[in-house]
Amino acid sequence: MPTAIQDCIPHNHCWGCGTLNPRGLQVKSYVEGEETVCRFQPWPEHMAGPTDVVNGGIIAAVIDCHAVCTALADAYRAAGAELGSEPLRWAVTASLRIDYLAPTPIGQPMELRARVREVKGRKRVVDCTLRSGGRECARAEVIAVEVPAGWRAGG
Amino acid sequence: MPTAIQDCIPHNHCWGCGTLNPRGLQVKSYVEGEETVCRFQPWPEHMAGPTDVVNGGIIAAVIDCHAVCTALADAYRAAGAELGSEPLRWAVTASLRIDYLAPTPIGQPMELRARVREVKGRKRVVDCTLRSGGRECARAEVIAVEVPAGWRAGG
Repeated sequence: MPTAIQDCIPHNHCWGCGTLNPRGLQVKSYVEGEETVCRFQPWPEHMAGPTDVVNGGIIAAVIDCHAVCTALADAYRAAGAELGSEPLRWAVTASLRIDYLAPTPIGQPMELRARVREVKGRKRVVDCTLRSGGRECARAEVIAVEVPAGWRAGG
Repeated sequence: MPTAIQDCIPHNHCWGCGTLNPRGLQVKSYVEGEETVCRFQPWPEHMAGPTDVVNGGIIAAVIDCHAVCTALADAYRAAGAELGSEPLRWAVTASLRIDYLAPTPIGQPMELRARVREVKGRKRVVDCTLRSGGRECARAEVIAVEVPAGWRAGG
């Protein structure tokens, strides 16, 4: 059983993917070759206006966490360091661009695949696709930026 | 006391803003002159990695609902119809572009202001800013598209 990226990141309270947030989505991302993959089953309340479609904000949240954790795993890898090892690294979202291509059905898991397309200093550009039942439902570009591990509000 | 846009939209189960979703965020948007405004107090669990910052996915969800409801209100207005009146109208998100400019503190409400910048057929381009404590923390462009009121997954 492979270990999720998030399960290697300490001190993570993130609503989307923090192991320390029991009320959060608990998104899990796995490295698969050159890509990362995340499978997420939306909760019944994660609907859009109609009850059988996933809310776009939930889609954005899962994409955001999956892409930032993909960038973070790549940053450790590029440094030749084990994920989650000292010195701790952290990354935040600088921008999120999502095209919603089709409604995402709520009754089955969505599958996200991401990869780092470009590294520019502390920035990583991550491409991410979201499929459900084999259909591409969303496509995104996320720019993640490495920040000091102790970042806080007001920074 | 003005009425929120969402309180005029029937059949809305949306996790972000549906009055029919008791487990959702219950985002409320109000028309103020040429703009719309939304004030949202993040929940304690809506944190990012650190506990005092709002998760970017929650920010995306609130922006998405506020912008799409802004577009929907504008569509009714342009048709000379009262918000939520028959024939019912609906709008979905075609794209979401967010630049995160600064961490958003979790302990105070965030204030979103949006306006429709451009109308192209069924599409509306909505600009939205998010401020917290007077500081601009995010800026977004949302493209909302009118769809038949009975839209569903697979559509």
